[in-house]
Amino acid sequence: MKIEIASSYGFCFGVKRAIKIAESHPKSKTYGPLIHNKDEIDRLKNSYGIGLVENFSDIAPNETIVIRTHGIPKKELEKLKEQNNSIIDATCPYVTTPQQIVKQMSEEGYDILIFGDINHPEIKGVMSYGVDETRVFVVDNVDKIKDLDIKNKVAVVAQTTRKHEDFMKIVHALILNSKEVRVFNTICNATFENQDAAAKLAKKADIMIIIGGKHSSNTKQLHSICKMYCSESYLIENVTELNLDWFKNKEYCGVTAGASTPDWVVDDVINKIKILK
Amino acid sequence: MKIEIASSYGFCFGVKRAIKIAESHPKSKTYGPLIHNKDEIDRLKNSYGIGLVENFSDIAPNETIVIRTHGIPKKELEKLKEQNNSIIDATCPYVTTPQQIVKQMSEEGYDILIFGDINHPEIKGVMSYGVDETRVFVVDNVDKIKDLDIKNKVAVVAQTTRKHEDFMKIVHALILNSKEVRVFNTICNATFENQDAAAKLAKKADIMIIIGGKHSSNTKQLHSICKMYCSESYLIENVTELNLDWFKNKEYCGVTAGASTPDWVVDDVINKIKILK
Repeated sequence: MKIEIASSYGFCFGVKRAIKIAESHPKSKTYGPLIHNKDEIDRLKNSYGIGLVENFSDIAPNETIVIRTHGIPKKELEKLKEQNNSIIDATCPYVTTPQQIVKQMSEEGYDILIFGDINHPEIKGVMSYGVDETRVFVVDNVDKIKDLDIKNKVAVVAQTTRKHEDFMKIVHALILNSKEVRVFNTICNATFENQDAAAKLAKKADIMIIIGGKHSSNTKQLHSICKMYCSESYLIENVTELNLDWFKNKEYCGVTAGASTPDWVVDDVINKIKILK
Repeated sequence: MKIEIASSYGFCFGVKRAIKIAESHPKSKTYGPLIHNKDEIDRLKNSYGIGLVENFSDIAPNETIVIRTHGIPKKELEKLKEQNNSIIDATCPYVTTPQQIVKQMSEEGYDILIFGDINHPEIKGVMSYGVDETRVFVVDNVDKIKDLDIKNKVAVVAQTTRKHEDFMKIVHALILNSKEVRVFNTICNATFENQDAAAKLAKKADIMIIIGGKHSSNTKQLHSICKMYCSESYLIENVTELNLDWFKNKEYCGVTAGASTPDWVVDDVINKIKILK
């Protein structure tokens, strides 16, 4: 049987980078889980002694702290410096960019509009970089813009995981009301690249295996995209869930994985399928 | 019979301003016709001695030259200064704005995208303010953007008479390809305000009189909008074309005028209708 892995799958650039950074700082602690995958957190703990601290107030002075891909609010960063923590910054460069844009644009006197979820750690960090918090607005859909008192000069950024079409609606509404709209396309394509690659592969394969958390929204989305093109598409969390019966009379197996699935989990699955036939 | 004039009609702010400027400079010459209405040009000539020069090369040194609402290219302005012409600038402020935006943004290193007609005098003027002409692009529809080699930082302006929806398509295409898009909403609402007011009035009136050039695209558009709401909508160039039969059994007459129709032409028509009944 032919086995093919999607041309883009699993961890994005920023997560791969963060894991490498963590691995090169054994015995450090991450502030919040580095990734939403328990197996990977366990691996980092067992192989590199990397711990986890969930609450900011639990961070002890002088500890080595890894900041995860989402970044953290500016004040927390300052506090870590004050209490002499050694800071290992694994903030994704695609998140550092909107943080710096918000800083610079608000210094230049622009109102700031952030398209995203105000409760998401990434947005909590990004919005904290505005010099005047009363001129930083966060909306998660276009309907909320009409309620805002936005000036004639506004700069707009998006949460990295948002869809372009939704971002355009926000920009459209702003342009009708402001003389200058400075649009920074801070959307990251990683999610869409995984989806596009999964669709392309599902069109050719007669069985698709999608590896990822059953509650992970991006994994479920990959699964539903695959089902559109390949009726025999199965979502599994790891190799133990593989069912040998699925592969009867199959010749072409496609494999993809959600954004929180480590490569070694994918490799385990592929090795098991290879043994099958 | 009730006669009501649309709440917005005829000359826009910029044209009214240009005519006042011309009137206060008798015996000057306009470079190009100040407005596309022969009657008004004749009036300015007969009452104020205001002449017309069509070609730049025909402008004599030391003459007083009125620059019309569209503006002129930067090099022509410099040439006028060199040859000691007295320059009366009637460029519409809504056109001066995109000229200055193009200048400033290109000085700051942005590529410039202008949404408009490269052969229109307004756009010839606006585009001339780019410091590097190889980095100034003009497109009149979104499909042409894919052929352009635009940098990661681009500033975009629109011809004042363009529609917002079309401008949004341009902005959308740019955002997908550039990291920063600086959007300046330079569209003027005057045309849309006349159209909205005409529609509102046509819904109430049982006869609509639209006054303007039969070949003027904005007048024809007003006519077609009025016909949607009032079947008896008539387009006339001036009072001589009024047909008294139209007004039989009518009680509510609405009046509007195209963007190149002087108020005195409108007044003549209204006075004639008043006499009718």
